[in-house]
Amino acid sequence: MLDVCLLGTGGMMPLPNRYLTSLLTRCNGSSLLIDCGEGTQVALRNAGWSFNPIDTILITHFHGDHVSGLPGLLLSMGNADRTEPVTIIGPKGLEKVVRSLCVIAPELPFDINFIEMNDAEETFIRGDYNITAFKVNHNITCYGYSIEIKRAGRFDPELAKANDVPLKYWNRLQKGEEIEADGRVFTQNMILGPARKGIKLTYATDSRPCPSITKNAKGTDLLILEGMYGEPGSEQRAAEHRHMNFAEAATIALRSKAEELWLTHYSPAMAKPELYKDYVRGIFANTKICRDGRKVTLEFSRDE
Amino acid sequence: MLDVCLLGTGGMMPLPNRYLTSLLTRCNGSSLLIDCGEGTQVALRNAGWSFNPIDTILITHFHGDHVSGLPGLLLSMGNADRTEPVTIIGPKGLEKVVRSLCVIAPELPFDINFIEMNDAEETFIRGDYNITAFKVNHNITCYGYSIEIKRAGRFDPELAKANDVPLKYWNRLQKGEEIEADGRVFTQNMILGPARKGIKLTYATDSRPCPSITKNAKGTDLLILEGMYGEPGSEQRAAEHRHMNFAEAATIALRSKAEELWLTHYSPAMAKPELYKDYVRGIFANTKICRDGRKVTLEFSRDE
Repeated sequence: MLDVCLLGTGGMMPLPNRYLTSLLTRCNGSSLLIDCGEGTQVALRNAGWSFNPIDTILITHFHGDHVSGLPGLLLSMGNADRTEPVTIIGPKGLEKVVRSLCVIAPELPFDINFIEMNDAEETFIRGDYNITAFKVNHNITCYGYSIEIKRAGRFDPELAKANDVPLKYWNRLQKGEEIEADGRVFTQNMILGPARKGIKLTYATDSRPCPSITKNAKGTDLLILEGMYGEPGSEQRAAEHRHMNFAEAATIALRSKAEELWLTHYSPAMAKPELYKDYVRGIFANTKICRDGRKVTLEFSRDE
Repeated sequence: MLDVCLLGTGGMMPLPNRYLTSLLTRCNGSSLLIDCGEGTQVALRNAGWSFNPIDTILITHFHGDHVSGLPGLLLSMGNADRTEPVTIIGPKGLEKVVRSLCVIAPELPFDINFIEMNDAEETFIRGDYNITAFKVNHNITCYGYSIEIKRAGRFDPELAKANDVPLKYWNRLQKGEEIEADGRVFTQNMILGPARKGIKLTYATDSRPCPSITKNAKGTDLLILEGMYGEPGSEQRAAEHRHMNFAEAATIALRSKAEELWLTHYSPAMAKPELYKDYVRGIFANTKICRDGRKVTLEFSRDE
């Protein structure tokens, strides 16, 4: 299962009662953060989630509202005596930007591993997180991310017998061990049926609607998209600033057959995004107009 | 008169309901900011004060909790279409630090003038603000600041007559004009009595108690000092981290004959600084244990 918390829902600048857009996930003791704006570390405390288990930080792009909180968060992690390294993944130029911001954090007690991306699509495995980064369409290089938690197939004793796997190894193989014995190598796939549906979350801010989002959001359990503007007819303004509005985000959710859509990254001028709830649900019914700190736990399906 | 708002009262890291320590003053349409940590721009909005009139920013030192909010504030100023320059004053190395932080604010629509200090004491006049910067005693170079609003002498018609100043110039001279006429130069001091007591505010975080603070705080109307630790007996811990505790700050207020002391810059571990109110008032009676957003308007004395 995957715990998800949308720490903030603001775009451009932090406001009273609206932190900048950032996402935190937890899975098996490992936390992953997407973006870190000014105040994200406070939003994290508000959510009641620790920053100690964060070992991966994904950066969408280098606009201030998505990275301005990084040095402060890293300093706070250091003040908590962290020694484990942190991996930061982002567009080309990442290390230069982060090191420049960290002029005020010159002596962190842990290492930072930087992974810079160049390709239109790149994949990474970080513990249980299977990450796909995909380029989106903003006015500077910007990536969206899909995070998948895979789920192994069901134990199949008939398959185990057919593969001639001794009973005494079944338990260890189920736990993922690989066993060499009796001149053979026994692996998990010899006793498990086909992989079952896992959990998938897809996140994209800031971008115009583009094919890479729809493609990567295909069948996602939770799609989180920016909705910089809410009102009908704001498409042109959104296009000028290379953002998308509520209706455009909802259309992507519809086309990609997402289970649920969360909107975020509201313009500071939009005081009440809820005003457009009925309108956007007319396009994609399962849309949530999020406020800071919205949480959900995504579970594996029960029926499989 | 001088409007004063203590935007935040936290040290080390921002917390829910406690912004990082930063001060904003207003005088005759010009605002001055001391330090800018992560979230200071939000604290400023919470206080209901605009950042448009800020034309001077004083930086005490380059620890993250005192400058991490600078790029975000400057970006927000730029987003508000500011074109007027901003002057930032701070220790040697200021421009390098700020430009490094501003990697995420590469295209501000206004200029930044940097003034870097080297001496133990330096003075600046910025509009009505008469600023004295003085080195304090922290683990990196750090300055405290006194801000004085001067007050001209009372109009003295007898003096004007004695100096043979024609009646027709009295009004213009009172407004500060210098007049060349009749082969003579007429100045304000020809018609005004001795300068009256102005307004003085003195601000110092982070520092051990040191002579430069006591000296510059002499007779100040409002003394704002850090109180990193509150409990009696915390002097040793304060000394180890080159901070001061409540009792040490109150002793400085007493010795410098300040009118009033505001405490700020509390350790994140100190949830209830008010617990030490009676204790610290036993040392200096007019001590305020501040919370975020505390405001006062300092007026010229009425009796002069």
